[in-house]
Amino acid sequence: MIKALIFDVFGTVVDWRTSVIEECISLEKHTGISGDWEKLTDMWRQNYMPSMDKVRNGKRKWVNLDTLHKESLINILKELNITGLTDENIDHLNKSWHRLKPWSDVVEGLNLLKSKYSISTLSNGGIDLLSNMAKKQNLPWDNIFSAETFLHYKPDPETYLGAAKILKLLPEEVMLVAAHNQDLLAAKKYGLKTAFVLRSNEYGPNQDFDLEADEKIDVSASNFIELFDKLNSYNI
Amino acid sequence: MIKALIFDVFGTVVDWRTSVIEECISLEKHTGISGDWEKLTDMWRQNYMPSMDKVRNGKRKWVNLDTLHKESLINILKELNITGLTDENIDHLNKSWHRLKPWSDVVEGLNLLKSKYSISTLSNGGIDLLSNMAKKQNLPWDNIFSAETFLHYKPDPETYLGAAKILKLLPEEVMLVAAHNQDLLAAKKYGLKTAFVLRSNEYGPNQDFDLEADEKIDVSASNFIELFDKLNSYNI
Repeated sequence: MIKALIFDVFGTVVDWRTSVIEECISLEKHTGISGDWEKLTDMWRQNYMPSMDKVRNGKRKWVNLDTLHKESLINILKELNITGLTDENIDHLNKSWHRLKPWSDVVEGLNLLKSKYSISTLSNGGIDLLSNMAKKQNLPWDNIFSAETFLHYKPDPETYLGAAKILKLLPEEVMLVAAHNQDLLAAKKYGLKTAFVLRSNEYGPNQDFDLEADEKIDVSASNFIELFDKLNSYNI
Repeated sequence: MIKALIFDVFGTVVDWRTSVIEECISLEKHTGISGDWEKLTDMWRQNYMPSMDKVRNGKRKWVNLDTLHKESLINILKELNITGLTDENIDHLNKSWHRLKPWSDVVEGLNLLKSKYSISTLSNGGIDLLSNMAKKQNLPWDNIFSAETFLHYKPDPETYLGAAKILKLLPEEVMLVAAHNQDLLAAKKYGLKTAFVLRSNEYGPNQDFDLEADEKIDVSASNFIELFDKLNSYNI
């Protein structure tokens, strides 16, 4: 019996790619400095896992995602020869991850799901990032759990099991909702239930992975509203 | 400039005394077992600070408030010669602290305050207690911070300063809202701003303390709606 849902955020709840590209275009209008913003955004996201891996492997001590994001951004700006942005511009762009916009089904879907389950984030974003985003985008979380809560990034077991522990629930009473099979399979390994939600253009029009759930995943849905319906049958 | 408000919960946000007495009466109707429920409730609350002090002083390792509440309850039931309650009855009564009802100004006041500030709990109650309460009573917190977040009970500095740190704010950008001078003066000592809210019958009709703010407190209000108005003038 599922009592709580915990949600991956980047990609699953919010459309980071469209949102960051829009923020770059808006910054270009403000500064007059142009660049290949799609490329910058895709490279930024490609740096995401490797940057956390250094913390996960113990090669560097804990730093939060804002710090990792900023380091990556500065390197990518150099690589793409985008010059002239002020420190303030760069900090503003870095904080665009605090302002990411949800997919169109999310607010309605989360409110439906909240009526039956405890709903929480479980994201590698910082607590302030997640709570700023929730406030701005009206995401009605019951709890905000972050890598920063556990000083471990997903897919470390401390994150999935830590959320269940704080909720005073068994791992099998908690379901991770994510658009990413890798995240879901890690949660599954540690005893949580899992729901895949399809976000087929999270990575842009040519995305060729995470287009369907791995066969080990418990539930699969095309959006959060369908997830609510499917859980009504699953969770008996 | 205040950017975030953090709230004491028991007494400040919710009326623990009336709520717990009501839960006892409801349990009496269900079980037929009677008792002096006002006395039980007042004794239970009197045990609150001493029970946490053992953890704060390092005399026992971290346990959460549900555990401390349950130990106190079992002792008080013995002391008052209330017998015959099952383990399930006792657990249900212990969890009444997860279901406490807010004062009448709270939901409207918090929604007003949320429109201008980040609003979070800073309570000695556990994360699950606070999130269960928020869900049941429609308390629209941006963040839930608990003693359990920091493994320290208030008034340890780790709680007040820990909340500011997670919010990525300076202590003076954060204001503690509480009905208790002791809590507020501790927060003040560590650099936070402070707002007293009057809850003149929190401890029953004969309450003779915390009827006005200590002179060191920054803002004083008679309820959360008045607090919103007063902060508009204060926070310029």
